[in-house]
Amino acid sequence: MNRKSSLVLSISILLILFSFIGYAQESVQKWNRFEATFVYQTNGNAFANIQLSAKFSNKDTTYTVDGFFDGNNSFKIRFMPAKTGNWQYVTTSNIKELNNQKGSFNCVEASGNNHGMVKISNTYHFKYADGKQYYPVGTTAYAWNHMSKAVQQLTLQSLKKSGFNKLRMCVFPKDYNLVKEEPEIYPYPVKSVAKRIDGTDKKVWDLTSFNPAFFQELEKQIDALNQLGIEADLILFHPYDKGRWGFDSLPMDVNLKYIKYVIARLGAFKNVWWSIANEWDLVKYKTHDEWINLSQSVAQTDPYHHLESIHGSTAKYIEYWLPCFTHASIQDEAPVMHWGAAPILRNAYNKPIIYDEVGYEGNLSARWGRYSGEYMTYLMWMGVIAGTYVTHGETYMYKDANDTIFWAKGGEWKGTSWKRAGFLREILEAASGPLEAADVSRDLKTASSGNGNYLIYFGKEMNENWYFNLPQKNGSFNKLVSGKKFKVEIIDTWNMTITPVSEVFETATLEDYRFFDKDRKKISLPLKPYIALRIIALN
Amino acid sequence: MNRKSSLVLSISILLILFSFIGYAQESVQKWNRFEATFVYQTNGNAFANIQLSAKFSNKDTTYTVDGFFDGNNSFKIRFMPAKTGNWQYVTTSNIKELNNQKGSFNCVEASGNNHGMVKISNTYHFKYADGKQYYPVGTTAYAWNHMSKAVQQLTLQSLKKSGFNKLRMCVFPKDYNLVKEEPEIYPYPVKSVAKRIDGTDKKVWDLTSFNPAFFQELEKQIDALNQLGIEADLILFHPYDKGRWGFDSLPMDVNLKYIKYVIARLGAFKNVWWSIANEWDLVKYKTHDEWINLSQSVAQTDPYHHLESIHGSTAKYIEYWLPCFTHASIQDEAPVMHWGAAPILRNAYNKPIIYDEVGYEGNLSARWGRYSGEYMTYLMWMGVIAGTYVTHGETYMYKDANDTIFWAKGGEWKGTSWKRAGFLREILEAASGPLEAADVSRDLKTASSGNGNYLIYFGKEMNENWYFNLPQKNGSFNKLVSGKKFKVEIIDTWNMTITPVSEVFETATLEDYRFFDKDRKKISLPLKPYIALRIIALN
Repeated sequence: MNRKSSLVLSISILLILFSFIGYAQESVQKWNRFEATFVYQTNGNAFANIQLSAKFSNKDTTYTVDGFFDGNNSFKIRFMPAKTGNWQYVTTSNIKELNNQKGSFNCVEASGNNHGMVKISNTYHFKYADGKQYYPVGTTAYAWNHMSKAVQQLTLQSLKKSGFNKLRMCVFPKDYNLVKEEPEIYPYPVKSVAKRIDGTDKKVWDLTSFNPAFFQELEKQIDALNQLGIEADLILFHPYDKGRWGFDSLPMDVNLKYIKYVIARLGAFKNVWWSIANEWDLVKYKTHDEWINLSQSVAQTDPYHHLESIHGSTAKYIEYWLPCFTHASIQDEAPVMHWGAAPILRNAYNKPIIYDEVGYEGNLSARWGRYSGEYMTYLMWMGVIAGTYVTHGETYMYKDANDTIFWAKGGEWKGTSWKRAGFLREILEAASGPLEAADVSRDLKTASSGNGNYLIYFGKEMNENWYFNLPQKNGSFNKLVSGKKFKVEIIDTWNMTITPVSEVFETATLEDYRFFDKDRKKISLPLKPYIALRIIALN
Repeated sequence: MNRKSSLVLSISILLILFSFIGYAQESVQKWNRFEATFVYQTNGNAFANIQLSAKFSNKDTTYTVDGFFDGNNSFKIRFMPAKTGNWQYVTTSNIKELNNQKGSFNCVEASGNNHGMVKISNTYHFKYADGKQYYPVGTTAYAWNHMSKAVQQLTLQSLKKSGFNKLRMCVFPKDYNLVKEEPEIYPYPVKSVAKRIDGTDKKVWDLTSFNPAFFQELEKQIDALNQLGIEADLILFHPYDKGRWGFDSLPMDVNLKYIKYVIARLGAFKNVWWSIANEWDLVKYKTHDEWINLSQSVAQTDPYHHLESIHGSTAKYIEYWLPCFTHASIQDEAPVMHWGAAPILRNAYNKPIIYDEVGYEGNLSARWGRYSGEYMTYLMWMGVIAGTYVTHGETYMYKDANDTIFWAKGGEWKGTSWKRAGFLREILEAASGPLEAADVSRDLKTASSGNGNYLIYFGKEMNENWYFNLPQKNGSFNKLVSGKKFKVEIIDTWNMTITPVSEVFETATLEDYRFFDKDRKKISLPLKPYIALRIIALN
């Protein structure tokens, strides 16, 4: 290695969408990013030859994080503090000029919409680090980040007007029946161009390096989602390649280096979740055990323990009980098509269950892409009423394969259920807490979010009226008793209306595991499907 | 220890229901029991003081099994050979006269109804050791073995005329709302009788010993079940005690000695399954981790690896993915009440799923004990059509709590679904193999048992006719193609009739994931619920 080195130490604190450089001790909000930049001129392959990490300390708390080479003689270390006060760091490197570099910053309380990383709470649910409950109402745009800048902007505008707070998206570009767009930029530099047997060009990647410009772009996209309050459920591997780029068939050592690099760059992004794969079992080039290794490698490498899961094809689950998986991310519609099925996996895994793919609202010929907006909305409600979560997706194609289908490309909303997803999120956030079945395996329609707080969902049933009645059992909360007064609101989950019922109801004595109103009062319901009730105690 | 010893070596080969003693080399059928008896006079506590085991060898195959004290100066070693040929054994003991005792026997091929132990097959199913498929169609009589001899005989007669091939039963007696019978005999000897605060007698057990007479009786009961081709799903612990005998609150070291003694005695019984507990989570005196310890202890102690699971209360599962559990034994009706739910746990655990308690046909006021015969039958079919299994139970009480309720006491059948369970078993055994969903999570009613072999179940639907149609997907078997000819039989699962349809059907070209008949032929169906179709390829 020829080394002509000069070292400039710069610390840049990346506040969302802008950054500044200075030498003074800077302030970083809790859960935002601290970034230190070291300039060191190298002629060799800095990705391969230079190791850099840093230990961050704040009293008795220490984190060791990897640094990374960002191109242009620029080495960076990022850190997400979860504790206020003075943080000091010292670097370790095999390069003298990058080794034993010290600095510090001051971490201040979070403010505004900064609630921190999302973590598991109450076994089956999620909370931000600041304690605010987080109810995942997600959608899917696998390759929005690989589309043109114009489509990306459109996607962000669409997301902004929606209520979604999670987005499934891939690091690697997507090749699929309806998704043929070539990205402008790739995660690896092009080493050469080879010819395929059919005469077409095939890029040969320099897999000993990365393309920093690609990741800088990805970071802007993830930060843009953060600005919208959206968690990036970042898919690290997927099968949609078919030899076009070969990113699904990289050797295991390359995959592990990729994981290390991605975590060094993105670990300090508070709104990142790791989705090890989409449809892992459809990737021909990795074994089941390699998936487990990759998943465990992510959990071991990530010092912050971001949420992590892996997603298979329809009804293909994996060992979600392994500690590396914080929750189950499942593709399967069977658990939400009919009553009583969704909670079964809560019972099995004792972790949050997100049905991340249950089919999509759209007009494709493929059966997974032709649900009505009503049915997509119904599936989301069938999940939440059971104390689980369901991810939305939209697959309308009105022109040809170049049309923007939101599921893969983003773009504009063309469907109807995206609005209902936002309405559902409002209902969830207005509840006294996360939902669970009030009387598990017996009453499949009544969920409880605490003492005296219920949500009943009637699904496709069209009822003329409803006799006030609730089960005695109330999940993990106190059993219902007689003499309890309630108000009731009628929620039309499709028309997005909430209509209060003027009467007050009072529980009679227990009859056959349930309490009716003491005067057997009933309420009139609209003769429509997709009706829910919100029932809240007054005493 | 005062030792006045004399040793008589006797080898008794227990053939079902009778045994003989001799000195010649005996023959034992594969999977039947070899038993060696050693007489040794002891004045101390032989349970506590004497250790005995034996190593059995047949060429390169060796097993080490524990012996046990059977009372009356009698020590026994039992062994179940799984390989024909000459088996030799040598004992190990801390007592000189019991140590280094040698013998041999000849193991011959099984014959008649001896198919060997039931083991896991094809991930989700079961096979006897001889390769014959085993489809669990079980019922429940938790404490039949603690009832009077007359009721026991009645129970065996009832089982004999039924089609059940598995019975859930407890080692310890049962105290419950409707089950107050005092057993004649207990697993431990009575040391003294204490007074409870309320003045009633409470037996104080000698927990350093066992009561061999109790276990001899249990063995006769298990052998009687074996004669009927019934697997004994033997429940080692349960919560139905409430201080009456205290068997639910024994110290952990006593529990572990009990496991060792039970396995020494019963391990060589080919029709025994270990059910570590019924409703484990309702036992107040054991923690979750203690249950896991007990379960792992059974798996480690049992040299034959009998089927093993553990059963919780409604919707309370446990880590069924642990290697000690060969299958999931679940109490929950939610998976079989509606379409699509039952296979979810196959996807999760990748083990056989037995819904061992989904409620019972009966007339109790408790909601778990008041299903109609139709509903009980429906639940069993909902399980099998999804490639899982459902256990039957009957809870009719026509007189008072002394009435024999089959679910706990055995006795006579009073319901209607027990006959349908036998019919279901005939259908299962006539299929070309175990069932699995043909098109998982999409077609929830069609199961496949191989290439060209289907079963469709319509559940509560009452259909006037059915257009011949099958999905292209066929589970793990070959996809269906056009030009395939089929015969169809209409199965009335309630009236237990099988009606062949005279026409032959032939698949047309693929339409929307399915094949219809090339002439769009349909068949008339009886306008009844609980109808199934058996569809078998002719070419």
